[in-house]
Amino acid sequence: MGQNHPFDKATQLTEETPGVYKGHTSEKYANMIGPFGGVIASTLLRAVLEHPERLGEPVALTINYAAPIADGDFNITATPTRTNRSTQHWYIVLSQNAKTVITGTAVTAQRRDTWSTTEIAFPNVPAAENVALPSIEGAPPWLQNYDIRIIKGAPLALSQTQSNNAHDSTTLQWIQDNPKRNLDFLSLTSICDAFFPRIWVRREKMVPIGTVSLTIYFHADSETLKMNGNREVLGHTRALKFYDGFFDQTGEIWSYDGNLLATTSQFVYYKE
Amino acid sequence: MGQNHPFDKATQLTEETPGVYKGHTSEKYANMIGPFGGVIASTLLRAVLEHPERLGEPVALTINYAAPIADGDFNITATPTRTNRSTQHWYIVLSQNAKTVITGTAVTAQRRDTWSTTEIAFPNVPAAENVALPSIEGAPPWLQNYDIRIIKGAPLALSQTQSNNAHDSTTLQWIQDNPKRNLDFLSLTSICDAFFPRIWVRREKMVPIGTVSLTIYFHADSETLKMNGNREVLGHTRALKFYDGFFDQTGEIWSYDGNLLATTSQFVYYKE
Repeated sequence: MGQNHPFDKATQLTEETPGVYKGHTSEKYANMIGPFGGVIASTLLRAVLEHPERLGEPVALTINYAAPIADGDFNITATPTRTNRSTQHWYIVLSQNAKTVITGTAVTAQRRDTWSTTEIAFPNVPAAENVALPSIEGAPPWLQNYDIRIIKGAPLALSQTQSNNAHDSTTLQWIQDNPKRNLDFLSLTSICDAFFPRIWVRREKMVPIGTVSLTIYFHADSETLKMNGNREVLGHTRALKFYDGFFDQTGEIWSYDGNLLATTSQFVYYKE
Repeated sequence: MGQNHPFDKATQLTEETPGVYKGHTSEKYANMIGPFGGVIASTLLRAVLEHPERLGEPVALTINYAAPIADGDFNITATPTRTNRSTQHWYIVLSQNAKTVITGTAVTAQRRDTWSTTEIAFPNVPAAENVALPSIEGAPPWLQNYDIRIIKGAPLALSQTQSNNAHDSTTLQWIQDNPKRNLDFLSLTSICDAFFPRIWVRREKMVPIGTVSLTIYFHADSETLKMNGNREVLGHTRALKFYDGFFDQTGEIWSYDGNLLATTSQFVYYKE
């Protein structure tokens, strides 16, 4: 922890007792209503990482957005529900005014060297410096904290043309913190949620949406994340189905040099 | 509920008070060690579905396998953590001898008619009756309760040849309950976990594995599931990365006639 960056301030927690923390939403990471959900997910994970009994590093994380977060103070409790020899399970709750607002589960583990391989190929993309930065004038504050360069699948509001004739919801984007920040589990978690909603890409218009559940599997340890330094990562995502008020968003995050760092999925409420 | 089938007996719960249930593992759904994880996931979901305060139908489910389940009795508590106008969030715990063994979160919701579409195509596969049933002699009991016809990507133990030269971990399989049973959220949940572990397919050998976390997004309501009757569904899955003791398994379940019913992912511990 302890990088002096707006992201670290936004996810900062004050320990009351082990596993019980106080935090505060950050104006810099505000979304249209309430805070950006990615930073909230990172803050719940941070509660686990700062717990004195934590074993190993994060391997799986699920965050459920149960209700809107009000700007202001919140409480987080992170409880180890089961500790094994090399894995540990967690339940995390963010509450405001004694009401549950966000719940989460996490698995941390001590990894061991094993046979390893990646089955999918790194997408064929231009280098980040060759992709234009879109104008994000009028966008919510949190977007100012990212440098996002969309190679394919920008929402219409960010497209240069009248319509990008979206036949599918696929997006490919280079992304990094702005100002730059060294990649770690916390920033990677946020980046997993930093795609525009798939339905905005597919329908070429903004409609009301809200993530109800987000899952991340980490395919890297902290040493591997460090190797990305403060450079960009590549995000790829798409929806498989939109049906009666909910769609999925399934994606991968790659290091700048082609190492698969995380796979992620979320289920999103929409109104149309 | 209440179909007279071994699956319904295996997932049967006795209510002690609302949200507090007793259950028992089923010999018919035993795995190599302990019960088949898919039936356990279904049993946790059933605790939510039987709760008198439950709102709507399941849309998202995450189950964390924190420790091995011993054969015998268990307790489940299902707690609504937040109830909104059209969505409800749940925390579910399975315990044995007062220790947490499985945790889960679920989201239920009242769906509304909206613009809907499916982006991925139904795989090009032969009809189930044209795919051979593999011999499952010596396989764990739970497999006797499924009719699984593997079109592509069988573990070597089930392959007809010496090696299937697996270049990737993709599996395509028709699957249905045996004896037949009408599809519902509970059986669909189990079917999401009824793939052989990806590493057995990719490495063409059995190695120790254990799912640590399973997530399912339901892309259908109960009326849609009913339309599948007691027919087979198609499962497709693959791993994207195997790394230092954990791999992902990402998949889709389709109705027999090509409707995407669920997308699912899990993160699995392996030893090699």
